[in-house]
Amino acid sequence: MHLAALHTPSQIQLNKEGNLKHFLTIEGLSKETLTKILDTAASFFNDQNQLITNNLLEGRTVMNLFFENSTRTRTTFEAAAKRLSANVLNIDIARSSTSKGETLRDTLWNLEAMAADIFVVRHSSSGAAHFIAKDVCPHVAIINAGDGRHAHPTQAMLDMLTIRRETKKDYKDISIAIIGDIKHSRVARSDMAALQTLGCKDIRVVAPNTLLPYGFDDYGPEVRLFNNMEDGIKDCDVIITLRIQNERIDSPALSSQAEFYKMYGLNKERLALAKPDCIVMHPGPMNRGVEIDSSIADGPQSVILHQVTNGIAVRMAVLALAMQGQLQEKGLIEAIAV
Amino acid sequence: MHLAALHTPSQIQLNKEGNLKHFLTIEGLSKETLTKILDTAASFFNDQNQLITNNLLEGRTVMNLFFENSTRTRTTFEAAAKRLSANVLNIDIARSSTSKGETLRDTLWNLEAMAADIFVVRHSSSGAAHFIAKDVCPHVAIINAGDGRHAHPTQAMLDMLTIRRETKKDYKDISIAIIGDIKHSRVARSDMAALQTLGCKDIRVVAPNTLLPYGFDDYGPEVRLFNNMEDGIKDCDVIITLRIQNERIDSPALSSQAEFYKMYGLNKERLALAKPDCIVMHPGPMNRGVEIDSSIADGPQSVILHQVTNGIAVRMAVLALAMQGQLQEKGLIEAIAV
Amino acid sequence: MHLAALHTPSQIQLNKEGNLKHFLTIEGLSKETLTKILDTAASFFNDQNQLITNNLLEGRTVMNLFFENSTRTRTTFEAAAKRLSANVLNIDIARSSTSKGETLRDTLWNLEAMAADIFVVRHSSSGAAHFIAKDVCPHVAIINAGDGRHAHPTQAMLDMLTIRRETKKDYKDISIAIIGDIKHSRVARSDMAALQTLGCKDIRVVAPNTLLPYGFDDYGPEVRLFNNMEDGIKDCDVIITLRIQNERIDSPALSSQAEFYKMYGLNKERLALAKPDCIVMHPGPMNRGVEIDSSIADGPQSVILHQVTNGIAVRMAVLALAMQGQLQEKGLIEAIAV
Repeated sequence: MHLAALHTPSQIQLNKEGNLKHFLTIEGLSKETLTKILDTAASFFNDQNQLITNNLLEGRTVMNLFFENSTRTRTTFEAAAKRLSANVLNIDIARSSTSKGETLRDTLWNLEAMAADIFVVRHSSSGAAHFIAKDVCPHVAIINAGDGRHAHPTQAMLDMLTIRRETKKDYKDISIAIIGDIKHSRVARSDMAALQTLGCKDIRVVAPNTLLPYGFDDYGPEVRLFNNMEDGIKDCDVIITLRIQNERIDSPALSSQAEFYKMYGLNKERLALAKPDCIVMHPGPMNRGVEIDSSIADGPQSVILHQVTNGIAVRMAVLALAMQGQLQEKGLIEAIAV
Repeated sequence: MHLAALHTPSQIQLNKEGNLKHFLTIEGLSKETLTKILDTAASFFNDQNQLITNNLLEGRTVMNLFFENSTRTRTTFEAAAKRLSANVLNIDIARSSTSKGETLRDTLWNLEAMAADIFVVRHSSSGAAHFIAKDVCPHVAIINAGDGRHAHPTQAMLDMLTIRRETKKDYKDISIAIIGDIKHSRVARSDMAALQTLGCKDIRVVAPNTLLPYGFDDYGPEVRLFNNMEDGIKDCDVIITLRIQNERIDSPALSSQAEFYKMYGLNKERLALAKPDCIVMHPGPMNRGVEIDSSIADGPQSVILHQVTNGIAVRMAVLALAMQGQLQEKGLIEAIAV
Repeated sequence: MHLAALHTPSQIQLNKEGNLKHFLTIEGLSKETLTKILDTAASFFNDQNQLITNNLLEGRTVMNLFFENSTRTRTTFEAAAKRLSANVLNIDIARSSTSKGETLRDTLWNLEAMAADIFVVRHSSSGAAHFIAKDVCPHVAIINAGDGRHAHPTQAMLDMLTIRRETKKDYKDISIAIIGDIKHSRVARSDMAALQTLGCKDIRVVAPNTLLPYGFDDYGPEVRLFNNMEDGIKDCDVIITLRIQNERIDSPALSSQAEFYKMYGLNKERLALAKPDCIVMHPGPMNRGVEIDSSIADGPQSVILHQVTNGIAVRMAVLALAMQGQLQEKGLIEAIAV
């Protein structure tokens, strides 16, 4: 993997007209591009607030390449692509020809030659989707469905869409707290990048020092660290609680679930410190009673299931936009039409 | 599971107008409702007796949730939903987020929030589909594809459709024998309920006492027990042979396959005791030479493969009807239109 | 399996009008039939040389029955069937009811009764697809996706389509070399049959004697054996390199990969002996540095990835043609319309 490339704000995901042709990472994308994604996603809801279906990918072939298993994320992409009328193929990429001594590059070229238009890529290595887009299949629209600890950009965009649709406020006027295991969360990293690009001025990271990433100081002046939960969520508009992964428990970073809940679990008393209309988000799957109390998860301020629905809309948007960006680059369409 | 609820004739599967919105069990459904399902299923055959396709579920998302593996039943539902132009997603529910410590309830809510319209549920526990429809996702149309020993209602309805299409007689004029392992068969239980509701007056259960369920006396005056095969099938219009499951062999209930065949296997001599136009049914998969002789299974009176085709039609019908019942309850359509 | 039947030029795959109704093997098909497949496949490319989609299988149900796992071949058929707007079901045939003691015949009859129109069959036993078409489900269009060492007819047809589209010469004017493990290659066997039928006069088989099949002398006067690579490829128009399967290495037939590369690996020096516009083909997956050098595989004369795309077109063609042949036989259409 070309790790060096990950830290340059890459223009690889844009075509010459500046439109998306891959969707790899939030970093380096402009406010206009992120807003285009959000506008497109929002347009996929009808007046009854139901997700529509349409023909934007009719006749197109979407292949899901999940090198790392994630039933849930794969399902969301499959549902999204089918709502756009695409043909969807789930490729058993782990069992595919790499096991016969073929190189990964040859396997991917073969899949591209089967007339694939879009690859949805999930991989445990940071930069995998980036590498495929840059060095293997630049003419296939590559959608990053999560790569190592690096990025989970559709999750970030569904969080942004949820904030926009639920708070109905501008990002610049929002105070947001992100609570928990920032260190191991690709969601947190992508969320912070998106929030900064969209103009958010008050991003609070609430975590013990052991769950903060190295180099945390580099995140910019909008981002502040709070070790104390109560201070962190005071007067917030949005709270994002992160999943504590079981494998972190009993490590030097985290003594026990009960200890985490005592220090950072979101409950009624703590939520009362935020603004009265503060919304509560969680990327799922939840550990009830660890990072969040059930009364909050199921309560009136929770928008956790709305995030899931918004996730379908956002995935529809990036699939449709990246496809159009590829067609535009190939001269097959003149302008982006969604 | 709320086992108590199973024994009350539940109205949970009907909307306020009395139309199906889930399809969980035969018990408690009226003759009119069962007839509506059968009429709808019958309408899906064209003049050449071929199954049609249509757009009744276009733009709808059907998720198959098979907690218990059943390739065959899953395939029939997938084929049926696709004939209605639905988007179908097979969810690897066993490997899904429950393995990450998420509750089943949260997993189901997440799937619902992915804009699912219908869940097809197969589970080894009696009442699982009922529980989901009542307590977890009442606004998703829940279709029971078999739950424990309790119910297999689409199998019952395909049997009813087969009887209607093949005998061309009214249910009230039919004598029917159900032969074999009644005790462990969810098919038998569902078939008897459907036959009684549809007005059948002569239902004969042919089995050794060891293969009868407890509380058999409660089934009503239309149901009679025969330990002797020859008496049981005399002058019948319909014979349903049930599968002997291999794991029952060599148990106290059943000494050997050969012994069962000798006592209860359907062969030419025995079939000759039924009416000349008696049809022979079997839910599959068959043990040839155990519950049925190959000459019968492949003979002119066998309608066993017609049952399979009718099964697609019946599954199309319950998918379409339950979807419309949900839409009607939500005020999105006024009347059931299939 | 009826092995005897394999060696008679079977007319089983044609309907009474002489049109394809199954696609089992190249052997016994006329030049006209093969040309019809190639013409149909070629018609599925648009002016920009992109594969089109169409509605030729709309409302039809295609079931993939892969008794032997082959992710790549299954994916190509799934992609092809979906481009024709078919409903596609991947049947987990290994885990299906045969495990419950049901006969294979009953399992297949059940799948047919689910209103299947086409079975795509992959099996490790020679003649499996032939057996199903002849003795089990003659009214389902059976497409052979590879059976044992016997035949891989869609691979042969995609090779023929590639030769036609890339050389733009008539088969009768082409010299072609097939290099490597002829003995274990169903591709080689099917390719030779197709080339002979299409009129090719100069087919050169380049291999050590240990990798030639028994009875090699029977292949006809157009086919010549070369143990020497340089002689074999001299002035060729087309070179097909075959995959060396890893399990052959270190056997009496093949000492080492390095040894094979030294004797038969295709590199620049050797390719220079062929005609300047000679094209290079490989069925994939490639062992780079064994049967082919990377400079050739990725070089200007390689058409290896075009083969993959042509494979989708050819599979679309045989699916559409066999379906129409079945409908014609049943009197449901009058003439083949693709």
